[in-house]
Amino acid sequence: MRFFSDNAAPVHPRVMAAMADVDVLDTAYDGDRWSQSLDARLSELFETEVRAIWVPTGTAANCLALAAFCPPYGGVICHRDAHIQNDEGGAPEFYTHGAKLMLAEGVGAKLTPADIAAVADAVANDVHRVQPHAVSITNATEYGLVYRPDEVAAIGDLCRARGWRFHMDGARFANAVASVGCSPADVTWRAGVDALSFGFVKNGAMSAEALVFFDAAHHDATLRRRKRAGLLLSKGRYLAAQILAMLEQDLWLDNGRAANAGAARLAAAAGDRLVHPVQANEVFLRATPDEATALRAAGFDFYDWAPGEVRLVTAWDTNPDHIAALATAIAGL
Amino acid sequence: MRFFSDNAAPVHPRVMAAMADVDVLDTAYDGDRWSQSLDARLSELFETEVRAIWVPTGTAANCLALAAFCPPYGGVICHRDAHIQNDEGGAPEFYTHGAKLMLAEGVGAKLTPADIAAVADAVANDVHRVQPHAVSITNATEYGLVYRPDEVAAIGDLCRARGWRFHMDGARFANAVASVGCSPADVTWRAGVDALSFGFVKNGAMSAEALVFFDAAHHDATLRRRKRAGLLLSKGRYLAAQILAMLEQDLWLDNGRAANAGAARLAAAAGDRLVHPVQANEVFLRATPDEATALRAAGFDFYDWAPGEVRLVTAWDTNPDHIAALATAIAGL
Amino acid sequence: MRFFSDNAAPVHPRVMAAMADVDVLDTAYDGDRWSQSLDARLSELFETEVRAIWVPTGTAANCLALAAFCPPYGGVICHRDAHIQNDEGGAPEFYTHGAKLMLAEGVGAKLTPADIAAVADAVANDVHRVQPHAVSITNATEYGLVYRPDEVAAIGDLCRARGWRFHMDGARFANAVASVGCSPADVTWRAGVDALSFGFVKNGAMSAEALVFFDAAHHDATLRRRKRAGLLLSKGRYLAAQILAMLEQDLWLDNGRAANAGAARLAAAAGDRLVHPVQANEVFLRATPDEATALRAAGFDFYDWAPGEVRLVTAWDTNPDHIAALATAIAGL
Amino acid sequence: MRFFSDNAAPVHPRVMAAMADVDVLDTAYDGDRWSQSLDARLSELFETEVRAIWVPTGTAANCLALAAFCPPYGGVICHRDAHIQNDEGGAPEFYTHGAKLMLAEGVGAKLTPADIAAVADAVANDVHRVQPHAVSITNATEYGLVYRPDEVAAIGDLCRARGWRFHMDGARFANAVASVGCSPADVTWRAGVDALSFGFVKNGAMSAEALVFFDAAHHDATLRRRKRAGLLLSKGRYLAAQILAMLEQDLWLDNGRAANAGAARLAAAAGDRLVHPVQANEVFLRATPDEATALRAAGFDFYDWAPGEVRLVTAWDTNPDHIAALATAIAGL
Repeated sequence: MRFFSDNAAPVHPRVMAAMADVDVLDTAYDGDRWSQSLDARLSELFETEVRAIWVPTGTAANCLALAAFCPPYGGVICHRDAHIQNDEGGAPEFYTHGAKLMLAEGVGAKLTPADIAAVADAVANDVHRVQPHAVSITNATEYGLVYRPDEVAAIGDLCRARGWRFHMDGARFANAVASVGCSPADVTWRAGVDALSFGFVKNGAMSAEALVFFDAAHHDATLRRRKRAGLLLSKGRYLAAQILAMLEQDLWLDNGRAANAGAARLAAAAGDRLVHPVQANEVFLRATPDEATALRAAGFDFYDWAPGEVRLVTAWDTNPDHIAALATAIAGL
Repeated sequence: MRFFSDNAAPVHPRVMAAMADVDVLDTAYDGDRWSQSLDARLSELFETEVRAIWVPTGTAANCLALAAFCPPYGGVICHRDAHIQNDEGGAPEFYTHGAKLMLAEGVGAKLTPADIAAVADAVANDVHRVQPHAVSITNATEYGLVYRPDEVAAIGDLCRARGWRFHMDGARFANAVASVGCSPADVTWRAGVDALSFGFVKNGAMSAEALVFFDAAHHDATLRRRKRAGLLLSKGRYLAAQILAMLEQDLWLDNGRAANAGAARLAAAAGDRLVHPVQANEVFLRATPDEATALRAAGFDFYDWAPGEVRLVTAWDTNPDHIAALATAIAGL
Repeated sequence: MRFFSDNAAPVHPRVMAAMADVDVLDTAYDGDRWSQSLDARLSELFETEVRAIWVPTGTAANCLALAAFCPPYGGVICHRDAHIQNDEGGAPEFYTHGAKLMLAEGVGAKLTPADIAAVADAVANDVHRVQPHAVSITNATEYGLVYRPDEVAAIGDLCRARGWRFHMDGARFANAVASVGCSPADVTWRAGVDALSFGFVKNGAMSAEALVFFDAAHHDATLRRRKRAGLLLSKGRYLAAQILAMLEQDLWLDNGRAANAGAARLAAAAGDRLVHPVQANEVFLRATPDEATALRAAGFDFYDWAPGEVRLVTAWDTNPDHIAALATAIAGL
Repeated sequence: MRFFSDNAAPVHPRVMAAMADVDVLDTAYDGDRWSQSLDARLSELFETEVRAIWVPTGTAANCLALAAFCPPYGGVICHRDAHIQNDEGGAPEFYTHGAKLMLAEGVGAKLTPADIAAVADAVANDVHRVQPHAVSITNATEYGLVYRPDEVAAIGDLCRARGWRFHMDGARFANAVASVGCSPADVTWRAGVDALSFGFVKNGAMSAEALVFFDAAHHDATLRRRKRAGLLLSKGRYLAAQILAMLEQDLWLDNGRAANAGAARLAAAAGDRLVHPVQANEVFLRATPDEATALRAAGFDFYDWAPGEVRLVTAWDTNPDHIAALATAIAGL
C-alpha cells in the first residue's frame, strides 16, 4: 500500500486512450494539431490568452520559467524548502546559467510578502550582491498547504512594485485549486502570476507538464531554450494528447479532488499528530521510529521526512481500502 | 504520403503494448524494475558490461555524452554538417557549458582519421586555443552513409592515441547496423567508441532513447546531469519499457531493415539522381524546383534539402504502396 | 629585436606617471574620481554620450560586449579568423553561456555585408538552428587591414535591418583610426556600432582597456557581469588613470601613428613579399623557412604565422634602428 | 580618515618600484621571467612544491579554485556570511557553471568540522540533492577572526575523509598569519588545504593576487580557465612583479602586522563595544546611530555593517595619528 508519493502512480485510462488516439503520422515536434491546440484550450481554462508548451518534467517547466525571468547574474526568491532549491539537483542553476536562489522563511513552506521582502531588503543594491529578479512559490506547497487567491495577489503586488517576475510551481496545482475551490485564473494571472508550471504527471498523466505563460513576451525565447535543453520531443503529439485528456471534462480537477479526499480522511484519523494542516494531498504526521516501523510492518510504504515525522501522500488512484486501512492504523497507534 | 522524416512516425504496436504492461504502480524515476533491467539487457546486446540510461530525446543523449567527455573549456571535433552542430539549437554548448564544436570536412558527413587530424593539427596547443577533447560521429550519417567497423576503429585508434573520448550519435544506429550487417559490439566499443546515443524514437518508439556508456566511469556524473537537465521523468518505467520492447526479438533491427529496404527501392528508381549512395533509410535526390513541385502535386511530402536537392526518408512503417508510388514517380520525372 | 607582437611592449612613461599620480587613498572599485570621469572623457572623444568601463584585458572587453548583445541560445557572426574565435580560449562561449560563433569568410579577415548575410541566410529560422543576434568585426583586422567608415556603416545598416547588435573589437583601434584618418565617431556609432572594445594595452598602457557602449541600455547589466567575472579590481583608479593618460593630448593616436609608421617602412622594403596590404602595424610576409631562419639569426624575433608566412608587428616604442635594420634585412633576402 | 576598508589603500612604494623595474620588453602573458619565477618563490615560502598563478582580483582567485574543485552539478560548503556567498556578485556560480554554495553557520564566520558536517549530513545522497564536493573557509574571516593550524587541520581531516577538496580564501592571509604567528605551510597544506587565494591587494599591492595550488593536478585546467575568463593579462610581468615584491623580505608579513597592530589599538579602546574578538585588522563595534554620526562628524569614514554595528578596518598604511585619534574618539563615546 503505497503512500510514498503521487509521482509514480499509473496513468489514467483516459490519458492512455488519448495517446492511442494520436498514434498516427503527423508533423514532428510541436507542429502537430494536438500541440497546436494547447494554447487555445488552456486560454479557455484560464479565461485569458496564454502561451503554453509541453515539457516532460516539472523540473523542466520550473527551470524554463526561471530562465525566462531571471538573468544569470540575478536571483530568485523562494522558500528554503522549495522543490527548486532542494529537489531538482541544481537544475535552476543549470537553466539560468548560475542565478542564485535566495531563500526565504515561511510556515509550511508558504511565503508571505513580508517573508519575501525580508530577503530582498537584506541585500544592498550594489554589484557585489546578487539582486532578486523573480519570486517563485509552490502551490500546493511542499508541506501540502495551499494559497488563497488573495494571498497570491499580495505577493503579486509586491512583485509588481519591485519589478520582479512571479512564477508558480504548480506540480500539485490541481490539488490546490480543488482545495480552495477558486478559478484557475483567480489564483494565477489575476493575482499577478506571470508563469505557471501546470503539473499533470502527479495527477494522472504519464510524461507531460504544461508551462503556461500569461505574458506572451517570454514565449519565443522559451521555445528556443526548450530545444536547447534537449526537451523538444519529436513526437510531441503524445505529450499534448496527455494534457488535452487531463483537461477534458475537468479530469485534472476530479483527480485532484480524489487525492485530496483521501488525504482528508487520513488527516481526520491523525488528529494531534498532524505537523501541518492538511489542505491538499499530503499528510505530515508525527510518528516515533517505532510507530513508523509498525505502520510499515502493516504494509504501508511512505517517506521518513524528518526525525519523528513521516509523509503520507495520496494520489488520484489511491485505493480507498488502502486509505481506510491506513486511517485505522494511524488511529490505532 | 510522408517522406519528410522518420522522426514523426507512429509508435510500434509492441511498444504501445509494453507501455500498457507497465501501467501499474512502481518506484519513481528509474528505481522501477524495468529501468533497473536496462543495463543487463543492453550488456547482453553489446556483449560487454555497459551502463545505460533512458532519456526522452536524441539531443539529450548526445549532449549528456558530450558533457561527460569534454570540459567547458574544451572542444569536440565533429562534421560540419553534424546534427549536434546544426540541428540541436545550441544544446551541446548548453550541456557542456560552452565547449566548442570544431568542424571537420568529410564526404557525405562521414569522417576519416585524416579529416579529424586536420582539424586538431591546425590548433596550437596553448591556452589561447580551445583544445579538442573528444570526437563525435553520426552513424548512419546525416546523409545516410554508414560506417563499417574498421572505419570506426580507425577513428577509435586516433582518439586513443590523442587521449580523446569517442562518441557515436546513433539516432539511426538501427539503420546503420542493419545496413552493414555487423554486430552492435563491433561497430561501437570494439572499435573504440566510449558512448553511444542509441536511437529508438525514429525507429518505432515514442519518447525513449538510450545513452549507453561502455566505460562505467562516466555513469554517475551523468545520472546527476540528467536530473539537473530536467530529464529525469518520474515515471521512467514507461520509457524503459519502450526500449525493452524495441530490443525484444530484435524489433529495433527489423524496423531498421524495413526502413532501409524502402530507401533501397527508391534508390533503385533514382539512378543518376542520387547525391549520395543510399546505405540506410535516407535518399538525397537531385530534383529541379519544377520536379519537386510535381512530386508534391502527386501527394508526396518531403524536405527541400538544398537548391536542386530533396531528401526522402523512409521509416519502419512506411507504406509499401507509398514507396512503390514514389519510386514510380521518381522514375517518371 | 622584437617584432613578435605589440602586446608585451613596455608601458608608456606618461601612463606610468599617471599611475603614480593616483597612488593615494580613494574609494574602491570604480567609485574613485578617475573611474568616474571616464564617461565624460570618452563622450568628448566620441562626440556623443557614451558609457564606458575599464577592464584588464581585451578578451574581457570583447566578451562582456558579446554577453550583452547575444543570449545564450543565440549566435554572433564573426570572421573565421577573428580573435574571439581563435585566440580567446573559449571566452566568448564562457561569457555568453554558450552562444555560438557563426563563421564568415572575408579577405584579410575583413567582412562585408555580403559575407555576413551569406552566413545568416544559410540558417533556417526555426528552433533547431541557432540564430544570429549580433555581428562582431575587428578593426584593425587580425591581418592588419582597416575599415573605412563607409564600410563599417554598410555592416551597421545590415545589423539595423536584421535587428542585430554590432560590436567592434578595437584591440588596435588606434592603429585603425590613425591609418584611416577618420574621427573615432565616424567609424563607430555613426556607422552603427553599438559597442567598442577600445584597446590600450597593445598601444602603451599596462593593464587597462575600455569597453565603450554607445547605447546606455546595456551598461547596468554589464557592470554586474564585470563583477561576476572577477574583473572588478578594487583599486580601479590605477586602470582608469591609464586610460585617461592614453587619451590625454591624443597619446593613443600618436602611439598608433608611430607603430603604423614602422610597419609602413617594413612594407616598403617587403614589396612583393606582402601577403596583405599593410594598413596598420602588422606586416605579413612571405618567407621560406630558410629566410625566416636567416632573419632570426640576424637577431629578429617574430611569429611564424603559417607555412611560408611570418608576421612582423611594430609597436608604439619599436626602436627605429631596429626597424631600419629589419627593413634592410628583408630587402636583402 | 578612512577606516572603510583595506581594499583601496595606496600601493606600497616597493611594489611601485618593482613595476618600474619590469618596465622593459619581455614575453607576453606569463612567459616572462618574473611570472616564471613565481612557482619557485612561493614553493620556498610554503616549504613544498606549489603551482601558482597571478590573477587581478581575489574574486577571480577564489572562483578559479572553486571551478577546479567542484563540478557544475556539485556544491561547495562555506559560511553563510562568506565573501564568496555575499560579495562576489554571483562569480562562484559563473565560474563553476552553476554549482551551489551550501551555507553553514559558525560564530564569527568561522567554521568547525561540526558546522560543516551539519550541512552535509542534511543532504540525502541521491540525484535530487546537490552533493558537496569542496569546503571553502576564509582566513582571516569576514569578521576578523583567524584560524589556528589545528583548527584548519580538523577541517582538512573532514575533507579528506569525505573526499572533498579544501579551499582557503586568504584575502587577508597576511593578517591571519601575522596574528597566529605560524608558518604559512602549517596553516595551509600541512593542514589539508588544497588551494589558497593568497591576497596581496588589501595588503599593499595594486592588482595582483596569487592562486596557489598545493596539488599540481589542477594547474593546467586552471591556466585554461584563467584565459577563458579574460584574466590572462598580456603584460603579466607587472602582476608577477607585485607579488614578488610583496614576498621580498616578508613585506607581506610586515604589512599584515602593521595593519593588525592598528586594529589592536582600536580594540583596546573599544572594550565592551566589540562584537567579535579582534584578531586581525578588522574591528566590529557596537555603536548607536548617534554615535556613528558623531564619529563621522569627527572625520572618520567607515562602514555601517548592521543595525547598531559599524566596521573599522585598518590597512598596512593607516596613519598612526588617525588610529590614535579614532581610539580616543571611541573611548570617548
